[in-house]
Amino acid sequence: MNVRRGACVFALCIGLSMGAAEARRASDEAAAIRAVMAAQQAAWNRGDVEDFMHGYKDASDTTFVGSTVRKGYRAILASYREHYATKEQMGRLTFSGIDVRLLPDANGTVHYAAVTGRFHLDRAAHGSVAQDDGVYSLLWEKTEAGWKIILDHSS
Amino acid sequence: MNVRRGACVFALCIGLSMGAAEARRASDEAAAIRAVMAAQQAAWNRGDVEDFMHGYKDASDTTFVGSTVRKGYRAILASYREHYATKEQMGRLTFSGIDVRLLPDANGTVHYAAVTGRFHLDRAAHGSVAQDDGVYSLLWEKTEAGWKIILDHSS
Repeated sequence: MNVRRGACVFALCIGLSMGAAEARRASDEAAAIRAVMAAQQAAWNRGDVEDFMHGYKDASDTTFVGSTVRKGYRAILASYREHYATKEQMGRLTFSGIDVRLLPDANGTVHYAAVTGRFHLDRAAHGSVAQDDGVYSLLWEKTEAGWKIILDHSS
Repeated sequence: MNVRRGACVFALCIGLSMGAAEARRASDEAAAIRAVMAAQQAAWNRGDVEDFMHGYKDASDTTFVGSTVRKGYRAILASYREHYATKEQMGRLTFSGIDVRLLPDANGTVHYAAVTGRFHLDRAAHGSVAQDDGVYSLLWEKTEAGWKIILDHSS
């Protein structure tokens, strides 16, 4: 076997397996974020706002943009509690069209991610006239406690 | 002078000046982002959509979330051109309440930033009924061509 050719094939294999490893890591990170969102959806649908909020980072600069800009985990939780006081008001939440975009730094390490998608809140059974369909963009941070939302814009 | 005490004062000064340098860098990055937004506002107000778009990254994954999720610099430009075909339709744009949040990596280097704020579009003189007030959240990337928007959610 030609040694130089063998070295090239070896280098190519290393390159491909590094690329594959990186793609797998990226896929793992996206899956981790999707898992948090699935847990949020499940928490919402059993009427557990506290558990739903575990998807957000418990920090004073965590931000929710709705009709206004609201800052702070506690303020966001209080707003959810105010607007969705009962399981009937909460309705049944479905996320769809979830698109995860990882945001690597110069070394390829991922600390942040952006997610866009649609939400649907089924409250028809309760005769609600509140808006129950919309879009969202979420900014995520990879914290020691896992992936957490630091900015949620829902409209 | 007590040598140990002198060393402590020296270390404290180094620490403070490092902290000051870091704060200055952060302030510079935030100022750079605000400058892009000021240039966008000026471009809009002279009816120059092309120049306004220079605030966005020219990439296929640059995203605009309005009533739907729209992807790609060209698609976003086409949509702006469609909805704001004349200087009268564009009206006069003002950004306010701009809040810049830098997103440092583990080494403290900043590649991304999030901005929230309000926009006002004065089109009253033209009798328009279109919505002309709202909120936005912008995700920015520090590229070789400067700070660019990679995700804009306006509602």
